[in-house]
Order: sequence, then structure tokens, then C-alpha cells
Amino acid sequence: MNPIDKLAEYFKQFPGIGERQSKRFVYFLLTKDKQYLESLSDAIMHVKDGVRICPLCQRFFSGPQEVCLFCTTAEDTTSLLIVEKDADLEAFRKSKTYNGFYFVLGGLVPILEKNPSEFLRLREMVKRVTDLKKTGLKEIVLAFSLTPSGTHTDEYIRNTLKNYIEGTDIKLVSLGRGLSTGTELEYSDADTIKYALRNRQ
Amino acid sequence: MNPIDKLAEYFKQFPGIGERQSKRFVYFLLTKDKQYLESLSDAIMHVKDGVRICPLCQRFFSGPQEVCLFCTTAEDTTSLLIVEKDADLEAFRKSKTYNGFYFVLGGLVPILEKNPSEFLRLREMVKRVTDLKKTGLKEIVLAFSLTPSGTHTDEYIRNTLKNYIEGTDIKLVSLGRGLSTGTELEYSDADTIKYALRNRQ
Amino acid sequence: MNPIDKLAEYFKQFPGIGERQSKRFVYFLLTKDKQYLESLSDAIMHVKDGVRICPLCQRFFSGPQEVCLFCTTAEDTTSLLIVEKDADLEAFRKSKTYNGFYFVLGGLVPILEKNPSEFLRLREMVKRVTDLKKTGLKEIVLAFSLTPSGTHTDEYIRNTLKNYIEGTDIKLVSLGRGLSTGTELEYSDADTIKYALRNRQ
Amino acid sequence: MNPIDKLAEYFKQFPGIGERQSKRFVYFLLTKDKQYLESLSDAIMHVKDGVRICPLCQRFFSGPQEVCLFCTTAEDTTSLLIVEKDADLEAFRKSKTYNGFYFVLGGLVPILEKNPSEFLRLREMVKRVTDLKKTGLKEIVLAFSLTPSGTHTDEYIRNTLKNYIEGTDIKLVSLGRGLSTGTELEYSDADTIKYALRNRQ
Repeated sequence: MNPIDKLAEYFKQFPGIGERQSKRFVYFLLTKDKQYLESLSDAIMHVKDGVRICPLCQRFFSGPQEVCLFCTTAEDTTSLLIVEKDADLEAFRKSKTYNGFYFVLGGLVPILEKNPSEFLRLREMVKRVTDLKKTGLKEIVLAFSLTPSGTHTDEYIRNTLKNYIEGTDIKLVSLGRGLSTGTELEYSDADTIKYALRNRQ
Repeated sequence: MNPIDKLAEYFKQFPGIGERQSKRFVYFLLTKDKQYLESLSDAIMHVKDGVRICPLCQRFFSGPQEVCLFCTTAEDTTSLLIVEKDADLEAFRKSKTYNGFYFVLGGLVPILEKNPSEFLRLREMVKRVTDLKKTGLKEIVLAFSLTPSGTHTDEYIRNTLKNYIEGTDIKLVSLGRGLSTGTELEYSDADTIKYALRNRQ
Repeated sequence: MNPIDKLAEYFKQFPGIGERQSKRFVYFLLTKDKQYLESLSDAIMHVKDGVRICPLCQRFFSGPQEVCLFCTTAEDTTSLLIVEKDADLEAFRKSKTYNGFYFVLGGLVPILEKNPSEFLRLREMVKRVTDLKKTGLKEIVLAFSLTPSGTHTDEYIRNTLKNYIEGTDIKLVSLGRGLSTGTELEYSDADTIKYALRNRQ
Repeated sequence: MNPIDKLAEYFKQFPGIGERQSKRFVYFLLTKDKQYLESLSDAIMHVKDGVRICPLCQRFFSGPQEVCLFCTTAEDTTSLLIVEKDADLEAFRKSKTYNGFYFVLGGLVPILEKNPSEFLRLREMVKRVTDLKKTGLKEIVLAFSLTPSGTHTDEYIRNTLKNYIEGTDIKLVSLGRGLSTGTELEYSDADTIKYALRNRQ
């Protein structure tokens, strides 16, 4: 394969990138000089340098520490928020409304999946919960997208964690449902209206 | 004007209908026989027959009664839900999760509007609240779309009603905010995430 | 059925109108006064008054004449343009680039349809072509949308008309294919590019 | 800057990639092992290896030859097709309907641009045309998207080339206009209809 097609094959594996856009990326790079290509290559080669997975929250972070800053500087040490992926965790950070612990599950449980433990960090999650139990954990927030697989994951994790918090007064909660920015009542489904009503305040 | 263009002019006034679709409606009707046109005309002429505006909730309804069925058969007489328009009220009815009183405001307050009392049923709303106060009203739910003018209307109505419920223990609440069906966290705005967190349960 | 639902049922039959929008139409009309409803009803009742189908081009028109103005005032009497429906004919009129005769077929031939003569004006089309043959017709333009059923109709009408123009020097042509306003080459299908090349000039 | 953000900055420069997707690319790469990252880096570093710009058509190609295969194997040596960019050239190749010479201009002329010679290969284009004039060129096809800047480029190149082909019988043509795949007449603009009619056949 020639170098153009070879690189296009790589870009086609990137999330959300099809054949056409992968070619556009290649043509874009062809217009760049050698120095640019070297810098980009270098950035890719070294993207994991100093980047590690935090042993507590499992998110990617870079820095000299063993444990990530979010875990060492959390103000509210009684709350643990479980998300699907790093990008979701960032959305919470940007909203600046949560200052407890995080945990990145690493994926959602597909609706028909029998054996999710294969690719989710279930063991790490259980360990984290068990550890935090000893230091005053009061609440676990399940924070998944309100899609079919997100809802399914919510149920699955609830079932998994139930046993570990039984007999404690740790609450297992999920994100609130209701109207989200832009929602028009006339076009809302019955579920959204039901929760918007139930959570009125 | 010829009869084709004349009728098209009418359809152009229908909500959401432009010049092209109004013409399509006319051509559609031109393919119908005289009997069909008569029945349709008749249905339009008589659409208000027996249809009245309920003096309590202000919604359109048809029937021999003075007051609409929703108002006479509400199970929970301690709650009043205020909506923008009849279509929103129907959305709540379909969700089957509310069984109190309704009130149709008749519109939203545009953000720059100085004099909304002109076209909203503010006087009727105040009267309805005042009457219900005497019969045990405990809660008023403001149920507007989560759009800029919906949010503005929420504030405006809060301010208007504040005086009338002062000194009572009637609660003035709004629909809950949070994730709505289909919401993906990665693409959510900070407000939606903030409320989803705040309303976790 | 109450008058509101009854009228909504009618509007649901309008082209492109679903349940929700039909209700919006009804609520819109409920806000109108009796006089408005009467005028609209009247316009519907009388939409066909004085409106007739031109015996030559088959389009709807209104006026005292037997035959429509487009047919009596066509400047180029050697060309006949065959379209699917009245709205397409109007698109050609607006473009002001054709001044010959028109013919409205009344529909397209669905790809799997065996017996299109039932609902298309095939007999009238053949008669029109036969008549125009005697007065110097030189060209028949098939002007259908470039959709699967439009393409199929083009073939079907070509086959139908072939016999009637055999032995004459009447040309049977279709609209030109190529780039249309807004077309980006990078995203074009092979067919569009093929025709754009073939019809270069 | 940490390595994650640093790489995200690079991806943000890729065509069509915003902040969010650039982060998704980085997270995607973080899940890959060292070998994968090395291969990708390598492919980027060497994307231009053996890739050169053909001195005749100006397209990127890879191979040991001085001149690209499209230029050395063109069957019809009397025709030159001028396109904006490599991706457009590929669209023509895929359609398999053109077998003459190509020329990649390297961009479009923005409508308000005064000095397009800065970033377009105008000198190379003129040279190519001058050379081909001596070997029997009969036709130059301007093949730009039917967008405002594409149309403007068509005019600009016409003016530029006019002087160089004056006195010869080389034809300067543009891609044909008309209906493109999917076009519905009812929703077409007057220009598309005008050209579809003019190019009927």
C-alpha cells in the first residue's frame, strides 16, 4: 500500500471518521512540512508519556504523582460519582458543581451483553467503593447518559453495588431527570414529563 | 384573486405553513369531490360549536357542561399546574402522572415584552389562584418549556403570583430539571449537568 | 367525536401533516372568530368554483375560458413539456425559460406498478401528442424529478410515446443532468459527475 | 502543556475537527498500546515519503516516477480537466467517465479575493496549458463545485486562460448543469430548472 492509503487506513479507525474524512486528513498533512509532521508524530508517540491511569478513579492523567489530582484534592470525600468515560468526567468538571470523588467505568453495558466484566472496570469499582466505605462514603451517584445502554448500565451497576453497601447507610442515587436545556413540552415524551413533574421543586 | 390563490392565502396563515405547502394543500383539495369539500367546510364552520373555553382552566373543550371535565374531576384539588397552551396540557394528560388542576396561560412572555398582560390570561390566573386558596390549594406548578421565553415566563409568573400567596403555605414550584430522554452527558451543557446533579436521587 | 377531534382528522389527511400539526391547526382556528371561520369555509367550499381542468394541459385553472391561458398563449407551439403535477409546472413558469406547451401527467409511475393507466392521464397525453403532431410538434420534453420513481416514469412514458411519434421527426428528450445549484463535487455520486462531464459546454 | 492537551491541540487543526472531537481522538489513542502508536507515528512521519507533487497535474502521488500515472497514461491527450483539489480529482476517477489530463488548481478563488495568485497554482496552470497547446489540446474543462466560490473561480479561470488560447480552436467549457441525483423539481431553484431545460437531450 502506498503511504497515502496506509495513513488513511489509520485515520479511518479514529472514532467518527469515515473513508472520505480520513483522506481529507491525509491531504491536509501532505500540505505540511517535514517539521510539522515530526512534531505531530512525536506528540502521538509520547501521548502516553507520563500519562497514567489513576489507580483510584481510573481516569487518564499526566503528572509525576501516583494518584490524580482530582482524587487527592476532592473536597467532599463522602460522595463518589461513577461515569462511563473520561469525556463525561470532563463535562462534570466543566459544570463546576461537583467536588467529590469520581470513578470512570470504562464503558456502558450493552443491553444484550451477558459478560460485561470483561471490558468494564467492575473489580476496580468494587474495590474503590469498599475502600471509601471505611472513610465515610455516604453517597454513590450513577451518572450515565439517558440512552438505552446508559439506562441498562444504571440498573446493572445498581445490582452489582447493592451487595457491597447493604447494611450501610450509603445512598445509591442516579442523576435527576426532567427538562433539559431547550426541552419543549409539546414535543416531550411521557417519561421526560413524568420525571419533570415528579422532581418539581 | 382567483379561488386557488385565495384559499392558498388562508393556508399560509396556518402555523408553520409557507407558500409552497399552502399551494400543496389547495391542489390536494382540488382533487377532492364536492362532498368532501362540504364536509371539511362544515367541520371548520362548526369547530367552535359546543366548544367553549373553560372558565376555570381556560382550555378549549366541547361538551354541554359549563366547566370542563378536567376541572370537575381533578382528584388532587390541592395542586394547580400552569401551562402555556392547550397542546402542553395535552402532553401532561398523555403522561398520566398529574391529577390536579390545570391552567392555560395562553402564551409565553417574550423576553423584551413590557406589557404581557395584554395577551396572557393573567387576570384569570390570579382569580383562579385566589379561588383555590380558599379550598385548600397547597402547590402551584409552573410548567413551561425550557427555552429562553419559557424561562422568562417562569420568572415573570413567579413574581406575579408571589404577592397572592404570601402568608400562605402554598408552594410555588417549577418542573424538575435534569437529564431528559436521550440526553448524552458528553454533549450536555453545564446547566443541564448542574441540575441533573442537584436533583439526583 | 367532538368537533375538535373531527376537524383534526381532516387536517391529518392533508399532505405532510401529522397528528400533532393537525391539532395545532385546530387550536389555531379555535382562536379565530366566527367571521374568519366562515370566510375560510367559504373559500374551501368554492375553491373549485370556476376552477376547471384544462382539457389540453390538464392543469387546474380558473377563468371563464374553456382552455387555460398557458395553452392559448404558448409562443413556441412546437414543444410539449410533460410534468408530474401542477406544482412542477409552476416551478417551470417561475423560471421563465420555457414558452411552449405543458402537459400535467397527474402522478409518477411507482417502480412496481403494473397498471399505471388507472391513475395517470395517459389517454389524454396520447391524444394531446397526436393532436400536436398535426400542427408542427417538434419536441417532447419529459420533465420529471431525478428520483427513482421519476426516472422510472421517464422510461415508461418514453416507451408509451415511442409508437406515436415513430416515423415523424419529433424528438423525445429529457431534462439535462449535471451539477445543480449547491452541488459539491467531492460529495457527488458517480452519476451526477458522469452527466456533468457528458453535458459540459 | 501536558501530552494529552498537546496532542489535542494538533488534532484541532485537522479539517472539520473541533475541541470535543480532538479530545476523543486523544482518548482513543490512549487506549492503544505502544506498538500501535509507533506505527501510526511512523505512517505520519513517512506520509510524504515517495509522495511527490506531479509536475504536470500537481496532484499528490507516490511512486518512483517523476510524473504521475494519470498524466503518463491518459488516453485522451486532447482534453484537460481543471479541478480545485485532490479529492475532486478522485471523484472524477471513481466515476470512470473521463480519460484525459487533469490539473489540480489547489483551491478556489474566494469571492472578495484580490490576489488569488498567491495560493493558487496559476503559473503552473498556464504553463501546462501552453505546453499542451503544442501537442494537440482541443478542450479545457473547468470542473468546480456549483457553489458561490466555485462559480467565481470558473469566471476567474476563464478570464485568465482566455488570452492563452486566443487564436487557437481550443474550447473552454464547464461542467454541465441540470438535475443532479435526487433533485425534486418542485423544490428546485430557477437556475437549476433553467439549465436542466437548456441542456435537455
